[in-house]
Amino acid sequence: MTAPTRRSTQTRLAESMLAARDADAAHAWFARTAEQSRMHVDRVPLDALAGWVTEPGTGNLRHRTGRFFSVESLSVDLPGAPVPHWSQPIINQPEIGILGILVREVDGVLHCLMQAKHEPGNPNGLQLSPTVQATRSNYTRVHGGKPIPYLEHFRDTSAHRVLVDIRQSEQGAWFYRKRNRNMVVEVDGEVEAREGFRWFTLGEIAGLMAVPDLVNMDARTVLACLPGGGGALAGAAVDAFTGALVRSADPAAPGVHTIGDVLSWITEVRTRTDLRVALGPLAGLPGWTREDGVIAHRSGRFFTVVGVDVRADGREVGAWSQPMVEPVGTGVIAFLVKEIGGVLHVLTHARTEAGYADVTELAPTVQCVPETHEHLSARPRFLDEVLTSSRVRFDAVLSEEGGRFLGARNRYVVVETDAEVAPDDPEYRWLTLHQYEELLRHSFYVNIQARTLLLCLRSLVPRG
Amino acid sequence: MTAPTRRSTQTRLAESMLAARDADAAHAWFARTAEQSRMHVDRVPLDALAGWVTEPGTGNLRHRTGRFFSVESLSVDLPGAPVPHWSQPIINQPEIGILGILVREVDGVLHCLMQAKHEPGNPNGLQLSPTVQATRSNYTRVHGGKPIPYLEHFRDTSAHRVLVDIRQSEQGAWFYRKRNRNMVVEVDGEVEAREGFRWFTLGEIAGLMAVPDLVNMDARTVLACLPGGGGALAGAAVDAFTGALVRSADPAAPGVHTIGDVLSWITEVRTRTDLRVALGPLAGLPGWTREDGVIAHRSGRFFTVVGVDVRADGREVGAWSQPMVEPVGTGVIAFLVKEIGGVLHVLTHARTEAGYADVTELAPTVQCVPETHEHLSARPRFLDEVLTSSRVRFDAVLSEEGGRFLGARNRYVVVETDAEVAPDDPEYRWLTLHQYEELLRHSFYVNIQARTLLLCLRSLVPRG
Repeated sequence: MTAPTRRSTQTRLAESMLAARDADAAHAWFARTAEQSRMHVDRVPLDALAGWVTEPGTGNLRHRTGRFFSVESLSVDLPGAPVPHWSQPIINQPEIGILGILVREVDGVLHCLMQAKHEPGNPNGLQLSPTVQATRSNYTRVHGGKPIPYLEHFRDTSAHRVLVDIRQSEQGAWFYRKRNRNMVVEVDGEVEAREGFRWFTLGEIAGLMAVPDLVNMDARTVLACLPGGGGALAGAAVDAFTGALVRSADPAAPGVHTIGDVLSWITEVRTRTDLRVALGPLAGLPGWTREDGVIAHRSGRFFTVVGVDVRADGREVGAWSQPMVEPVGTGVIAFLVKEIGGVLHVLTHARTEAGYADVTELAPTVQCVPETHEHLSARPRFLDEVLTSSRVRFDAVLSEEGGRFLGARNRYVVVETDAEVAPDDPEYRWLTLHQYEELLRHSFYVNIQARTLLLCLRSLVPRG
Repeated sequence: MTAPTRRSTQTRLAESMLAARDADAAHAWFARTAEQSRMHVDRVPLDALAGWVTEPGTGNLRHRTGRFFSVESLSVDLPGAPVPHWSQPIINQPEIGILGILVREVDGVLHCLMQAKHEPGNPNGLQLSPTVQATRSNYTRVHGGKPIPYLEHFRDTSAHRVLVDIRQSEQGAWFYRKRNRNMVVEVDGEVEAREGFRWFTLGEIAGLMAVPDLVNMDARTVLACLPGGGGALAGAAVDAFTGALVRSADPAAPGVHTIGDVLSWITEVRTRTDLRVALGPLAGLPGWTREDGVIAHRSGRFFTVVGVDVRADGREVGAWSQPMVEPVGTGVIAFLVKEIGGVLHVLTHARTEAGYADVTELAPTVQCVPETHEHLSARPRFLDEVLTSSRVRFDAVLSEEGGRFLGARNRYVVVETDAEVAPDDPEYRWLTLHQYEELLRHSFYVNIQARTLLLCLRSLVPRG
């Protein structure tokens, strides 16, 4: 309930986006923090995970307290899909966590308080993370650990300005209806950056997006939910591509479809897609084996459920054990983009994943692990164009959530295209960045992979 | 993909809303249609329902084809609520049906094609219904019945203008995650009103809202999803109340809260509310009995599951049998409204119902069946003010969906108030009509009872 400042939020976000600073300083801070913190991760058999039990009868993996999360199975019916029925292990974590970034104006420019944080699944240890990344078990202190720094700003926002506050989904292929609360909260007063924390402009973070495995998934999803700067970015364009890019963020720029058309298309897809799922026991899952302390698919494809022991410095809890999902292969996640009428449009795919809370979300043009398709006759649509394009605008390998996924990496790519798609294609639509921004005010429209790519795309706005 | 007409949709909707016509003609048409159609409903024991089976083991009621719907049980945990755990029978109908109203300009004014339709649960037989009211079983012809008139306009909208196309929830106390697709589709060409159908302006329908049990629930939810006329209603005000009412529909009028604040509050409520539900067997449900051919609560409260045989003229199928939910008592559903800064605000309650797809929806200020609270010490908040107020602006008894509910009636009331509510009250907020309109573009924000009341409130705009 703070009085609005003179400049609009969009203008202030645009100014922070265009404020590049000295990247060397950020890297030096990051290297210094890395020296001062350590995390050791050892693989252990699922049967030997301290605190975790295999439930008699169901074979489900759960914590002895019943908190945190469990690994169960999901039986999926999706009539008309290439694979119309399957069963799979899935992480069930009904708790809604907080992913929060604190922002404040420093010398008149918005800065984000970011944290250099280890997660056991990170391939490289430390990654740039939100101010707060807390499950409800964390923040209600089921761990019995130390208090979480800065959490109070997100639990009681009454004295602050709330820029983002929306539940969003995560990977529907690995999580059953997982939702986290994505928050950006602006404080007016002085807030000190503690050890392991640092204030960044949006432009600085944008400059780090292309560094492999640096900006973590939780930071990406929260930042993607921020408005994109709107018309205030206009002056930043330096060529035709960046001109179309900044126009795409402007609500005044015309899209191929109206937002009403896009919403009607989403309704149509969610209505015609007859997804039926049921949680069930992990024991006896067809096609999956539990041997040698891990749960794996007989084909060797998809993912494996493994156990790890973790020892960490500087965490709320110093040591713990947990199951993790370890994907097979590196995914390719790509936006095809095209300038239409002077406005950059993103080719959006309506994707159904078994674990989504609401059937279908807007996904990247391409989202797949190429290896898992090698035994199938049909190639994912547009994959070959992504892999062979000479018009690549963004290309970096980034990690997924290191708290649940072990070494999960995807190659995020933005490619310019001349592809044509029929205006009434059942599965694809061209959207502007501003239309994404409108949808991101609400839950479960834009999937987690598309949120990362939107941030990658925004990072291409030229800075200073 | 039709070219937009010169006048905006809001202007055209406002014009239709202000176009009252001869109410006698509508009543005469209705009476004539009633004479020409009949529906006979006989109660029969659940065990004697043709085509329905009590599933061995679970005791669930389902159709022998596995289609339509089933009656199962829901086990509900809602920590912190006055009743933190209960089990109840619930209707499970995963199919998404279409509730569609066809509109077209007649003499330059938008008209809605409405139908006079029987449903077995209607207390008075015929009610004013949408153009199309079809479950997926209907429109894929599981019934083996006659084709549904006008359905083709909703199944392929490519040649039309889509004004509304959004899935909305229905009663979360009786349905498990029921959603219907609410559609309003505008056609340009000539469309004939068949026997039992008639073209109405929005103003004509508004004039019928206060007639008991006339405008059916399906018509109400679809019409409530239409934009409300925006600033184009401004000229219609005749006094302070109606001035505040039409300003409330105007996006330029300031609300007590921004839409961002409202969305953040919804996120907060949905995050902190730890609703856990599980479908289960109907047999052996604690507190419920299956005796004398019905399922009832031992206390006699809540509702009863009963069976009916139906014979109908002029339907796709001439005779059928089905279970229905018969509520105990008539509910009171009310908006408290107040002029704040010249703009009418509605006091909105964030209500959690076990069957909601997403935990919590925005509900009327009061929504209860007073009798079921008589044995409890706590009266529902604001109920006594509604029952004793001398500032009643709307008061009519309307029916709920007669296809599933037998004689389900609620008293819908709009009352002016001076009540004060803290700006950070955990459960209540003041919203403008335009804010509701923004939320109604998306699924699952505004519950079915609030949608009806919004339409009642809009019907108070003075006409001609």
